[in-house]
Amino acid sequence: MLTPPYYAVIFVSRRTPVDSEGYAAAAERMLALAQIMPGFLAIDSVRDPTTGQGITVSYWQDEASIANWRQHAEHRETQLTGIQRWYEYYDLHIARVERAYQSAKRLVTSTTGE
Amino acid sequence: MLTPPYYAVIFVSRRTPVDSEGYAAAAERMLALAQIMPGFLAIDSVRDPTTGQGITVSYWQDEASIANWRQHAEHRETQLTGIQRWYEYYDLHIARVERAYQSAKRLVTSTTGE
Repeated sequence: MLTPPYYAVIFVSRRTPVDSEGYAAAAERMLALAQIMPGFLAIDSVRDPTTGQGITVSYWQDEASIANWRQHAEHRETQLTGIQRWYEYYDLHIARVERAYQSAKRLVTSTTGE
Repeated sequence: MLTPPYYAVIFVSRRTPVDSEGYAAAAERMLALAQIMPGFLAIDSVRDPTTGQGITVSYWQDEASIANWRQHAEHRETQLTGIQRWYEYYDLHIARVERAYQSAKRLVTSTTGE
C-alpha cells in the first residue's frame, strides 16, 4: 500500500470507435514506459469496452516525476496522436493524495484492465 | 470544467462474481444520493464487466463534504455490505486536485459507466 503524501494523475477518457491505428500497442508501450520512469509508484486502469469509457489513475512520488513523464519525448508524441485520433475527449486531474485506505483482501498493488 | 482546488475520492475495486444480491440497485441509489449531497461536484465511473475491475472518482468541493458523505447513515450501511459481499478488494485515495486540463471535445462534465 502506498503511503501518503503522493500524487495521482487521473485520466478520464472516451475512446473513438477507431479500434485499429495502433492504439492497443501504443497503450501497452506507454504503460511499460511509465513504469520505468523515476518516481512512478503504481497504476490502475479500467476501460469498459462496450462504452469506450476509461479511467486511468497513475500514482507518482512527487510533482517533478509527473512533469518529467509529461515531457518525455515519446510520451508527448503519443499524447498528440491520442488527442487527434484515439480519444473523443479526455479530462486530466493532477492531485495530491492526502489519505489512503485499503480493504484487507487485496493482494496486488497495481492493476491494468486493458 | 471544474476549477481547482477541489477534492477527488478515487475508489478502485474489483467486484465479486456475485451479480445478484442487490448490487446494481445499491450502486444506483448511492450515485443518486451522492449527487444531492452538499459539496458534490461530479463523478466519473467505469467498470469493465469482463474483469469486474472498476474505478469511480467523485469530485467534491472540500474535505468536509467528503467526511459528511462518508458518515451518511445509508451510505455507511451500503459500505459495509460492499466490503462484506460485493467487492473482492478496494483501494481508496483521498486527494486534493491542484491542476486540471480538458480536451476541447468533451460536452458533458460527468459520466457513469454503470
